[in-house]
Amino acid sequence: MAMIRIAVDCMGGDFGLPVTLPAALAFSARRPDVELHLVGLADKLEASLAQARPPASVRQRLRIVPATEVVTMDDKVEVALRRKKDSSMRIAAELVRDGKADACVSAGNTGAWMAISRYVLKTLDGIDRPAIAKALPNHMGGVTVILDLGANVDCTAEHLLQFAMMGSALVSSVGHRERPTVGLLNIGEEAIKGNEVVKQAAELLRGSPLNFYGNVEGNDIFKGTVDVVVCDGFVGNIVLKSSEGLAKMLGVFIKEEFKRNLFTLLIGAIASPVLNRFRQRVDPRRYNGAALLGLRGVVIKSHGSADAYAFEWALQDACDAVTSGLLARTAQTIAQMTGAPAGGAGQADGREPVPHGENA
Amino acid sequence: MAMIRIAVDCMGGDFGLPVTLPAALAFSARRPDVELHLVGLADKLEASLAQARPPASVRQRLRIVPATEVVTMDDKVEVALRRKKDSSMRIAAELVRDGKADACVSAGNTGAWMAISRYVLKTLDGIDRPAIAKALPNHMGGVTVILDLGANVDCTAEHLLQFAMMGSALVSSVGHRERPTVGLLNIGEEAIKGNEVVKQAAELLRGSPLNFYGNVEGNDIFKGTVDVVVCDGFVGNIVLKSSEGLAKMLGVFIKEEFKRNLFTLLIGAIASPVLNRFRQRVDPRRYNGAALLGLRGVVIKSHGSADAYAFEWALQDACDAVTSGLLARTAQTIAQMTGAPAGGAGQADGREPVPHGENA
Repeated sequence: MAMIRIAVDCMGGDFGLPVTLPAALAFSARRPDVELHLVGLADKLEASLAQARPPASVRQRLRIVPATEVVTMDDKVEVALRRKKDSSMRIAAELVRDGKADACVSAGNTGAWMAISRYVLKTLDGIDRPAIAKALPNHMGGVTVILDLGANVDCTAEHLLQFAMMGSALVSSVGHRERPTVGLLNIGEEAIKGNEVVKQAAELLRGSPLNFYGNVEGNDIFKGTVDVVVCDGFVGNIVLKSSEGLAKMLGVFIKEEFKRNLFTLLIGAIASPVLNRFRQRVDPRRYNGAALLGLRGVVIKSHGSADAYAFEWALQDACDAVTSGLLARTAQTIAQMTGAPAGGAGQADGREPVPHGENA
Repeated sequence: MAMIRIAVDCMGGDFGLPVTLPAALAFSARRPDVELHLVGLADKLEASLAQARPPASVRQRLRIVPATEVVTMDDKVEVALRRKKDSSMRIAAELVRDGKADACVSAGNTGAWMAISRYVLKTLDGIDRPAIAKALPNHMGGVTVILDLGANVDCTAEHLLQFAMMGSALVSSVGHRERPTVGLLNIGEEAIKGNEVVKQAAELLRGSPLNFYGNVEGNDIFKGTVDVVVCDGFVGNIVLKSSEGLAKMLGVFIKEEFKRNLFTLLIGAIASPVLNRFRQRVDPRRYNGAALLGLRGVVIKSHGSADAYAFEWALQDACDAVTSGLLARTAQTIAQMTGAPAGGAGQADGREPVPHGENA
């Protein structure tokens, strides 16, 4: 079986190498079927790697790919795209474009990562705009995929329909569900008077071959009413960030209650095995990776503030997308719906035999 | 000191009398300064009251106001407004209009309650559209007021500015803050390309005498970055419902962990005093009441699924709005900003001396 080749932007995110490299080494040690292309400032990368001294079994599956520039978290999109043509971010995307990697991962600036990966890889036939998708845990013990999470602020009904296709393809490939249910995020009773775009999108979805459930409300995301929740990037981003904020606040509150006095501290120590299990279960680091869908390649975005454990999960997401054939499934879903050639993504699907220039 | 007079729609909500009456009696017993006007189907109301047998000290501060119709949770807005002219919901609003009550409360259908209270009470001068506002707990140990939560799906920049005025007035009166900070809900880094309406609203807010903080993101709601968060009703409703859904899911997860086996059950029993304090602190029932702002009268909406404890909090919110002079403060804020006559709300402000027809 061919190696899964992941290009990693080692300089991205709030922390850069101190997070990405340990994550890459730990992940590589767990996954002998994976080859990592570590992209970054060569001297820093070499020095960090020398210090980490990975075992030979890991080291032989690491390739260092030098870049001379770094996109910072504050860089404007234009700067990142037009003036830093040799950034680690850009080179990671180019490795995928050139068939040298099957997927790329960055924890850098979302706007820049979206713009660069779109510029380098282009969108799939039948897709106007890429979207950011993420899996969130739900009541049912599974996950709900929600998109778009901020790539597209103003969306037409057609865009929402395309998001639905891409989300469906993600769940049917990575989530192994044959006909994922799709819900359109709306506000229930007031919907009749409401948002014209959402009403039109519902019409389009009803007429599509997708498994459209109908409108869903905010609470349905965590209930697990449907497999895929579709919304525009403005709403999706606010829902995601407010959920992160609420979860954090509840975590702080529960800690405060256990820290109230010596007696509650003692109770906290006794309850810690149970509380830790709970924390692990809802640990946002496990849901770190977001997929940039609609591109001719697998592109994963890690949270900028990710630690090494969280970044490992983003690498895991990249592997899952590759092994499950996400790109082929997406192209197939689009072809079913629009008549666009399903082969459009074939060349970018890393599982196809492509020249292994760098690995030769 | 004059009595605070609250009109209660006793038939509204998922449960009607079995929830609203016990709540009214308990609240009345705690608050000898409050007189409740219980509006509902006379025979049912009388029967329930006879069965409850409140002490004379409570009974003498209860007025029964008969209605012959009930707005159901599924009634279309048109039906509620045009065909049920003698509904308990409508009469509760009319008591405020006629100066017989200082505020009205219903747990009924949101769309109908908004339409009826707007039709009966009219909007304040300078306000185009009423908005739904709610206080949510935040990290700082205080609350963040967020509006609109679903009354207005499509908003202009001017509407958002008006929401900011109303939210400011709510926090400065009920929350006793002199110059509440106002944040505009947006999605951060992508904002430059983003939503035109929000960009225009930011301009308007910057030029207004309000204490405008700038854009805030979803996580700022629970961080307590600002006192008031402004957004359109589509976004606000989805944020509120997804937050409710997430909190519920986390509650279920934590329960499941403690119910895993006999050992964890025992730990749960030991930890229960601390867990209960935590639960009380974040109990959504304490944040039940939402205010319908921008009307010529104090109108409170309770969650449809509220139990008696939650409904009591909605009654509490109505009292707080009356005693803090919310209406006068709102009219004053609008006058400062638009030059509209501040007296516009005077006649509807229940704290002004008005004829006490029914109490005479």
